[in-house]
Amino acid sequence: MSSWQSYLDEHRERFLAELQEFLRIPSISSLPEHAEDVRSAGEWVAARLRAAGLPTVELLETGGHPVVYAEALAGADLPTILIYGHFDVQPVDPVALWSTPPFEPEIRDGRLYARGASDDKGNMLVPILAIEALLKTEGRLPLNVKLLLEGQEEIGSPQLAPFLAAHRERLACDMVISADNGQWSETEPSLLTTLRGMCALQIDVRGANTDLHSGIYGGTVQNPLHALVQLLASMRGPDGKVLVDGFYDDVRPLTAAYREHIARVPFDEEAYKAQLGVEELFGEAGYTPLERIWARPTLEINGLWGGFQGEGTKTVLPNTAHAKLTCRLVADQSPARVAEAVREHVRRHTPPGVRVTCEVLPGTAQPYRLPEDHPGNVAAAEVLTELYGRAPYYTGSGGSVPVCELFQNVLGVYTVGFGFALDDERFHAPDEFYRLSSFYRGQEGYCRLLHRLARG
Amino acid sequence: MSSWQSYLDEHRERFLAELQEFLRIPSISSLPEHAEDVRSAGEWVAARLRAAGLPTVELLETGGHPVVYAEALAGADLPTILIYGHFDVQPVDPVALWSTPPFEPEIRDGRLYARGASDDKGNMLVPILAIEALLKTEGRLPLNVKLLLEGQEEIGSPQLAPFLAAHRERLACDMVISADNGQWSETEPSLLTTLRGMCALQIDVRGANTDLHSGIYGGTVQNPLHALVQLLASMRGPDGKVLVDGFYDDVRPLTAAYREHIARVPFDEEAYKAQLGVEELFGEAGYTPLERIWARPTLEINGLWGGFQGEGTKTVLPNTAHAKLTCRLVADQSPARVAEAVREHVRRHTPPGVRVTCEVLPGTAQPYRLPEDHPGNVAAAEVLTELYGRAPYYTGSGGSVPVCELFQNVLGVYTVGFGFALDDERFHAPDEFYRLSSFYRGQEGYCRLLHRLARG
Repeated sequence: MSSWQSYLDEHRERFLAELQEFLRIPSISSLPEHAEDVRSAGEWVAARLRAAGLPTVELLETGGHPVVYAEALAGADLPTILIYGHFDVQPVDPVALWSTPPFEPEIRDGRLYARGASDDKGNMLVPILAIEALLKTEGRLPLNVKLLLEGQEEIGSPQLAPFLAAHRERLACDMVISADNGQWSETEPSLLTTLRGMCALQIDVRGANTDLHSGIYGGTVQNPLHALVQLLASMRGPDGKVLVDGFYDDVRPLTAAYREHIARVPFDEEAYKAQLGVEELFGEAGYTPLERIWARPTLEINGLWGGFQGEGTKTVLPNTAHAKLTCRLVADQSPARVAEAVREHVRRHTPPGVRVTCEVLPGTAQPYRLPEDHPGNVAAAEVLTELYGRAPYYTGSGGSVPVCELFQNVLGVYTVGFGFALDDERFHAPDEFYRLSSFYRGQEGYCRLLHRLARG
Repeated sequence: MSSWQSYLDEHRERFLAELQEFLRIPSISSLPEHAEDVRSAGEWVAARLRAAGLPTVELLETGGHPVVYAEALAGADLPTILIYGHFDVQPVDPVALWSTPPFEPEIRDGRLYARGASDDKGNMLVPILAIEALLKTEGRLPLNVKLLLEGQEEIGSPQLAPFLAAHRERLACDMVISADNGQWSETEPSLLTTLRGMCALQIDVRGANTDLHSGIYGGTVQNPLHALVQLLASMRGPDGKVLVDGFYDDVRPLTAAYREHIARVPFDEEAYKAQLGVEELFGEAGYTPLERIWARPTLEINGLWGGFQGEGTKTVLPNTAHAKLTCRLVADQSPARVAEAVREHVRRHTPPGVRVTCEVLPGTAQPYRLPEDHPGNVAAAEVLTELYGRAPYYTGSGGSVPVCELFQNVLGVYTVGFGFALDDERFHAPDEFYRLSSFYRGQEGYCRLLHRLARG
């Protein structure tokens, strides 16, 4: 047994007690009355990092809640990683639905119940404990480690972009390892390698200068609702395939190897349909449901409105109609190029008798795809295979994870997810919990990962 | 000069003074505080009918505002007409926009300004004065005349249907002559011969059992907004032609003679576009704008909604979508048959992955078309030609006139419009007025019409 493993085993009880202490701090970032608690949690983290033996530990101001930055440098010729996590938590409402108070951690059946246990305090403490074990047993880390632990992930990290930009040189690294992450199940590891990007648009259709009586005028002027319906119908085929010219131009084709990776991931279509209450799934022909969510772009109407929405009948021929759209994007689509393709489609397909505008809305996200041969991806896969006795699934997410885009844009590096939450752990909901098995497996995993990454 | 014409000339001043007296009664049917005024107006009308010499005059209760009924029967072998009008008026808000108080009639430049002057007290008094002139100068009327003058037209005649049903035998007639009507211009007469009918429907689309995140689920389930858009787009061609199977089955074809009638009616397309603020008109190929409004059916979305309608972006894949539709119908379409055709279209074109319902809403109206050879139509046209020195335009209305449908359904007779309002007389708006020329011409017109109708 390696000496760091012995160290982890010897200090199990203390580490668990420390996590419980950390969980008692109600660091809810969205509630102003908890601002001091968020700061206290940051100070707790900073103190814990110092106790772990990291030589540089600082609480840095962001304009919002503070960031904890730490580093333990091992040598200029060694790789550098930046470990990311967060010490703020979600609110606890409805508090009446908690079996035990959210900030009084309690262990039941091998699970530690508390707000933030899984998202992200448990996961975030794991690499700190691993670093302590390595420092205490080996005297030094096998590579350069920086940690960036923030206090406002749950409110969308509003100051993180300028903070990263302001500290770009200090945060320079070869990759980010995100501890705000999870695994597929207790027995099946996974690596999140794709995120869809997004662009958002609004279409506004205007007809006559006022709402008109549908009897008196109907048959002589274009109805903006019909014009909008016709325009939107022209954008998608019956299976949801997008018919906007150029929409798929930059989509990286799915390789056979990548499709095999996705095919390995368990997907129970019957359970999925039952969960959503639909009789059949729907989507682009030629792709599996997981391929369609993780690796194919979409165009969806998010909102549609115009005319009369009340009870009964109003014989109005309205003079405006509106729709909001988002496109979910995959590598290597550009949100700006796709938005322009949609705008061009609107220009070319505007029905007669109305004026149509199509504006890009805020909410852009770049699609993200971690290369399969990225050293962090390769190393994480090897370590997960050792830990679980089986290779990880390569998974994606249909939504965006803004920090991945931030790290790529500002620091120019990919983010490798390496965390141990599981999807059933009720983050953001009452009775959030974290498995103690994940807490211990994670510590071993981080010790192995740091050594594996040091080998390049 | 006929003796009735001399009588009309002799009593011009008195008749005008009587109209002004009638207009001073603020008989606003929609405001409860004016209920007694509506009744007073009815009593004024009843007294005026008695003074005119009608042997039977009654104020009848309806459950709402009263009705005035009168009759002067001339002989069982003679035709019977029922003259319709109303003595209630619209509210006067915004009262500050009136040049003179709405219930203090004032004559300026040959126009009598007051609420109700044109709609419908002036028009309604005209046939009473004509009847007086005939009775006083000829001793009897040339045919059987009944009058039904109501006090709640401006609130949709809520008790008129049961009232007509309850008095069906007493109201029996060969046709209704509606004094609540107008002419094309001061120099151009017109006869309203077609009204469009209507049916109304609501379409509701349901997908998953809850709103979904468009990133996490988009690409695997049908979006009800897209399903609705696709369904609605399938109902109309690019020019608005309805693509619902069977929709046009019962439409009476436009005869060449009828199209010539419509073609005679002045229509200034540039002025119409400028009024509506549109750059081009829109509608079914092969028909003129007036044909499309008066003689062709339409299907219009009146309201459309689902998903997010606020500022910015919400990445929701909503689970419901809704639309309200009305179809405007022409002879001989049946609202029930057309509604069923639309429902069948919805059933046959429901996209996969959603459940769709299509329910008929209240608001049905039968289309109406007065036959060109109807004796009332022929007689009115002849009299208008004598009065104006030119033949009337045959016009239509794209909307419904509920009393026409009521008289047809309950009494089984057509309604011939014979009134002298002009469209610019600001009914329902501040500074409503009635032309004195219309007041006098109308009296002559009714004397001529009663004689003409008596000849059969």
